[in-house]
Amino acid sequence: MNPHEKPLILVTNDDGITAPGIRALIDMMNEIGDVYVVAPDSPQSGMGHAITINSTLFCEKIRIDDGPQKDREWACSGTPVDCVKLAITKILPRIPDICVSGINHGSNSSINVIYSGTMSAAVEAGIEGIPAIGFSLSDFSYSADFYAAKEFIQKIVRESIEKEMPKGMILNVNIPKLPKEQIKGIKACRQANAVWKESYDERKDPRGRSYYWLTGEFVNLDKGEDTDENALSEGYVSVVPIQYDMTAHHFISDLNQWDL
Amino acid sequence: MNPHEKPLILVTNDDGITAPGIRALIDMMNEIGDVYVVAPDSPQSGMGHAITINSTLFCEKIRIDDGPQKDREWACSGTPVDCVKLAITKILPRIPDICVSGINHGSNSSINVIYSGTMSAAVEAGIEGIPAIGFSLSDFSYSADFYAAKEFIQKIVRESIEKEMPKGMILNVNIPKLPKEQIKGIKACRQANAVWKESYDERKDPRGRSYYWLTGEFVNLDKGEDTDENALSEGYVSVVPIQYDMTAHHFISDLNQWDL
Repeated sequence: MNPHEKPLILVTNDDGITAPGIRALIDMMNEIGDVYVVAPDSPQSGMGHAITINSTLFCEKIRIDDGPQKDREWACSGTPVDCVKLAITKILPRIPDICVSGINHGSNSSINVIYSGTMSAAVEAGIEGIPAIGFSLSDFSYSADFYAAKEFIQKIVRESIEKEMPKGMILNVNIPKLPKEQIKGIKACRQANAVWKESYDERKDPRGRSYYWLTGEFVNLDKGEDTDENALSEGYVSVVPIQYDMTAHHFISDLNQWDL
Repeated sequence: MNPHEKPLILVTNDDGITAPGIRALIDMMNEIGDVYVVAPDSPQSGMGHAITINSTLFCEKIRIDDGPQKDREWACSGTPVDCVKLAITKILPRIPDICVSGINHGSNSSINVIYSGTMSAAVEAGIEGIPAIGFSLSDFSYSADFYAAKEFIQKIVRESIEKEMPKGMILNVNIPKLPKEQIKGIKACRQANAVWKESYDERKDPRGRSYYWLTGEFVNLDKGEDTDENALSEGYVSVVPIQYDMTAHHFISDLNQWDL
């Protein structure tokens, strides 16, 4: 990137283009670069890395506020991953210098990375060779304080642009639910080994058919001090570098011992 | 597992419970253990690791054929991952000995693992501590020959049960589109580094609004001989061990050098 040029920043999320979390992130990114927003027109939480292949996508230019990005926002009928693909292929004037996704309403630490539309959007950008970061706040409330970690969010984005992350590297950033003055700093971590212990609330519809609501309890199985869960519990912003090569490389030699 | 007991096998997929690929897999698994089927009631391709959290799920017992599993099949309105969660939480009499997903109509090698509902179902079982395997055939046709690799599929399942895979390990098995006698064997591999170069076919709806169809071209960027793409091109069934820890462990020390 030419150092005199402002970075081109693609902003997306999974809670929808009008969610307070993305509006705060757009605001923060406007201070760093030229912001383009391509985000879902409705909530897409829990969509993981879903893409729309068997139906059509709509994508419309809309104007939501008077910020510097006011003429560079598009609402898309698809998933977060669709938004990134469409942005890169059809909308942006050039490949962005960075893609930021969020700020998600709720944590995407540990195993949540795998269910998260916020993180999948970032991963998709990573697959396309674009530095990418997903931001999430451990607070589901629509009136959550998304600005408490503004300084840390901007620092991470600026460093990611300056340090030129290796291709395919994505950052999963989680922010503890704390007032600004109680956030202790930033910690680089690994993904904690945790699991959701699900239960399903079974009900009957008016015609007598059973239906189910997913509920669940989060269980951290990992006592390591180097995990994102631990950093968050200690009041730090956690940063986990993630990759999309899912190969368990160490197990290939074991497989070669099998009778296959 | 008691060696005199038959293994309990959960079968799911993403193409829907009536797709030829899952019917073939059920047939093959009936020769190995007690089969329970919990699969989507409609096609769910490209759903990745999506879960249903903002709406309800229906799940109904149905009978499709006269196989030994005839009274142990459920069709679910949700995603492949929902099916696995529901099966484990509400349907199965005990934790299954193995979960097999597929046979997918189309390849899930290399980067496709990340978009695939077939593989996400297997990954979900892995997260729950259940040995899991996703099977995919490099042939989209509904009349594809899913039985060409029967011997290999059964061998991999039997070995996975016998060898007791480590918790959280999942196998991504892809089968080349070849007649039985031309399949050379099985190769343990790593996920190839590949990417989809997308384009969107833009059209106008009757009211003049633009809409888009996703299309794309698969590009293998990886010339390694140890990849799944290479094994498939040489006529082997590829087996990639995968894990759900997405941490890029080697990059944590780099992050600690950043000014954060």
